[in-house]
Amino acid sequence: MAASAPISKTIYLGPFVHSTSLTELEISEQGAIGVDEKGVIAFVERDVAHDGVDEIKRRNQGWENAEVVSVEGNGFFFPGFIDTHTHAPQHPNTGLFGKTTLLDWLQTYTFPMEASFASLQKASTIYRNFVSRTLSHGTTTCAYYATIHVPATNLLADICLARGQRALVGRVCMNSDLSPEYYRDESTETGLRDSLESINYIRSIDPAGEIVKPIVTPRFAPSCTPDCLSAMGRLAKETDTHIQTHISENVNEIAFVAEMFPAQDSYTHVYDTHGLLTPKTILAHAVHLSPEERATIKQRGSKISHCPASNTAITSGCAPVRTLLDEGHTVGLGTDVSGGFHPSILENVRQCIWVSRHLALQTSDAAKLSTEEALYLATRGGAAVVGLEDKVGAFEVGMEWDAQMISLGTANEEGCPDGAFEDGPVDVFGWENWTEKVEKWVYSGDDRNTVAVWVRGRLVHRTGKFMGARGAATP
Amino acid sequence: MAASAPISKTIYLGPFVHSTSLTELEISEQGAIGVDEKGVIAFVERDVAHDGVDEIKRRNQGWENAEVVSVEGNGFFFPGFIDTHTHAPQHPNTGLFGKTTLLDWLQTYTFPMEASFASLQKASTIYRNFVSRTLSHGTTTCAYYATIHVPATNLLADICLARGQRALVGRVCMNSDLSPEYYRDESTETGLRDSLESINYIRSIDPAGEIVKPIVTPRFAPSCTPDCLSAMGRLAKETDTHIQTHISENVNEIAFVAEMFPAQDSYTHVYDTHGLLTPKTILAHAVHLSPEERATIKQRGSKISHCPASNTAITSGCAPVRTLLDEGHTVGLGTDVSGGFHPSILENVRQCIWVSRHLALQTSDAAKLSTEEALYLATRGGAAVVGLEDKVGAFEVGMEWDAQMISLGTANEEGCPDGAFEDGPVDVFGWENWTEKVEKWVYSGDDRNTVAVWVRGRLVHRTGKFMGARGAATP
Repeated sequence: MAASAPISKTIYLGPFVHSTSLTELEISEQGAIGVDEKGVIAFVERDVAHDGVDEIKRRNQGWENAEVVSVEGNGFFFPGFIDTHTHAPQHPNTGLFGKTTLLDWLQTYTFPMEASFASLQKASTIYRNFVSRTLSHGTTTCAYYATIHVPATNLLADICLARGQRALVGRVCMNSDLSPEYYRDESTETGLRDSLESINYIRSIDPAGEIVKPIVTPRFAPSCTPDCLSAMGRLAKETDTHIQTHISENVNEIAFVAEMFPAQDSYTHVYDTHGLLTPKTILAHAVHLSPEERATIKQRGSKISHCPASNTAITSGCAPVRTLLDEGHTVGLGTDVSGGFHPSILENVRQCIWVSRHLALQTSDAAKLSTEEALYLATRGGAAVVGLEDKVGAFEVGMEWDAQMISLGTANEEGCPDGAFEDGPVDVFGWENWTEKVEKWVYSGDDRNTVAVWVRGRLVHRTGKFMGARGAATP
Repeated sequence: MAASAPISKTIYLGPFVHSTSLTELEISEQGAIGVDEKGVIAFVERDVAHDGVDEIKRRNQGWENAEVVSVEGNGFFFPGFIDTHTHAPQHPNTGLFGKTTLLDWLQTYTFPMEASFASLQKASTIYRNFVSRTLSHGTTTCAYYATIHVPATNLLADICLARGQRALVGRVCMNSDLSPEYYRDESTETGLRDSLESINYIRSIDPAGEIVKPIVTPRFAPSCTPDCLSAMGRLAKETDTHIQTHISENVNEIAFVAEMFPAQDSYTHVYDTHGLLTPKTILAHAVHLSPEERATIKQRGSKISHCPASNTAITSGCAPVRTLLDEGHTVGLGTDVSGGFHPSILENVRQCIWVSRHLALQTSDAAKLSTEEALYLATRGGAAVVGLEDKVGAFEVGMEWDAQMISLGTANEEGCPDGAFEDGPVDVFGWENWTEKVEKWVYSGDDRNTVAVWVRGRLVHRTGKFMGARGAATP
């Protein structure tokens, strides 16, 4: 599964499902998608009979010797998920937040764990584990916060490149008193130097940025002094780099920002003043923005990462996703581990639907997000947030094959006397239509249903259920 | 695993975790629990060294030849979960609700599926599958709604008895026009006759009600004519049977009840008038009750099943669990499949915490339920809802061994290069304390972590990870 191994021309045969717009999900029951040696989708055929491999090869010149990967049983291909916001070093803290809310949770759980990434050995264990976890949940692109440590951050980029997972990897910049003395940048100057060092390293291992890219990562306004924020804005501009940070997650945090930055009249204005709102900026949370702030963000072309599991778990609030979408914002989903309690975007698809329903209970039914909309946010929406909307998130000619093969269990006709459910949590009884099968996956599925994952045509994760590719001789 | 096979005296060795009160969770790191041939807990020892089996046997006379079941690795024993409200025939509809809310969802998904249980073959497939599913999630006691069909309802009781899962099994009674002509009781008389037939059958197969018991099940007020409700109230009284129904789930439903029953001034009053509020009554949902209604329910001693996943999924509302608890109500958790999207009580432990946080966002922090409180609702709370508080829900001498062995994964020190996570979703890195291990299970665990399940000392579910019991000769 090494990212550098050559790949063969492959025809992916079977049902495929993807978003064609925010509200429309295409379910093509008999598909054939040809992916070339560069991982680029060369053709997408629909209504292809399952026995027609030879014919498909014949009518696509040069594909006679292509390998074939077929969906087995109750399965389908789905675009890889895009996680637009997560903290890789917090993986071991997943599920630990007890009774805390944002600011005390940082001091209790987050900072001590992140500080320990001064040890490269610890970083290696946790980062390798976490990248495996996110891949196993079908995440083909991930925007990672690392820690303040350059070596550990660079190691995370190495791991993503080696495993073949698309990633934006950010050394965290934080120099204010909010962070404990044992875990912060010494000064604006050292923070700037370290961030630049990590950017240069990541660009050296993947010069074209095809798999891994650096991202300037001022943690959030309260973690940075004004001159540090300005330095990060300049750094991103000078190096033409993405930016990620947090915004307006929690009411106490917003009050704190107002106190720390009296010269600016809003949280958004703080970032804007320091040159941090660009079309390549990912703003996580955006729960409590004012209409004026949203207008500024829209005008700057910055993107929003909605993190529903986290917002619920640490009682931050319900981000008004319907409003953001209606206003034309670009929105994707983020797991926000470990504020979020799960590294799976599929779990966050569900959580984003639940959050929208809680919002609907307080406002109007218009707030509700549909299954189709939530899946769009998890794929095409997320792709647009990380600037990859032309490359990933759907199955179109010219896009790259970032995909997962979903396989659903089959309920035994004789019931299940021995209680073994090795195929995972979804029971398909046989009478469901395709829309219902997809819904069953969305509402009950987990990593056991993601049996194979590809990035740019390369197999980057598989379970024992995946049968592999068949050679040209076995149609 | 047959429910009738004899069991051996067994010592369960290793950490155990259970609720000692609503707010306190005991974590005993080195426990030894002796369970006799009747499945009753004979002794509970704490602070026992792992190598002290012989000594434990010596100081408990008559236990020299007991078998030993040890927790392996990062595991612990936990009481079996109590599901106080679920609909077994709706299992195949799990995850299917699309854009509906309660009343149209019933017509679109629920009634057609339930009607098909006229076929015993279909009922057999689905019920066997579902009982296996609930057992696999650690549910040792379950209050099931079946359908209106006597043979299929009785079959469900047969399956629970054969598998050894404690169950309350209810033939659904519904005779009003709300239900379609193709799926309702013909009249009050036929409904009464059929419910009585099912009660008699279930009592014939388990006369002492040690595993399965009947439960009178008027679906909910809108499904029944007033004389039908009265007949059900009388039936429950005459046969001294439990009662289960729904109450105050959704605002439209409440308005509908007010219209249908103009003689009563509240939903609660409807049930009370017809003799349906007894100490053996389980009321599911209770989302929008007035203070007066809550006072009546409290006075009658009826119990409440909180179904958070369902309430969120079909946008019913946030049940005020803190208020209910403060007022002294008895509250347990229900999965409410398929309004609820998951047959797992552990998922509903999480969902009940999330719902409480959404309520806290609208009211005050006091609404938040802690991890400890949610686990109490899932075990001792649920046990009290179904009238088994003296028998199950915790590990105390004289209670019965309804338990699950939880086993958490161990994160590989070398990371996870091949992406295989066969031990399930929880990563334990080795530095976590016991409270943190339990939290990781609560917030990230799933059925893969429930490696063995017992009811009354009998093994009723196991995965390949469970090592089984050791005989007396191998201490």
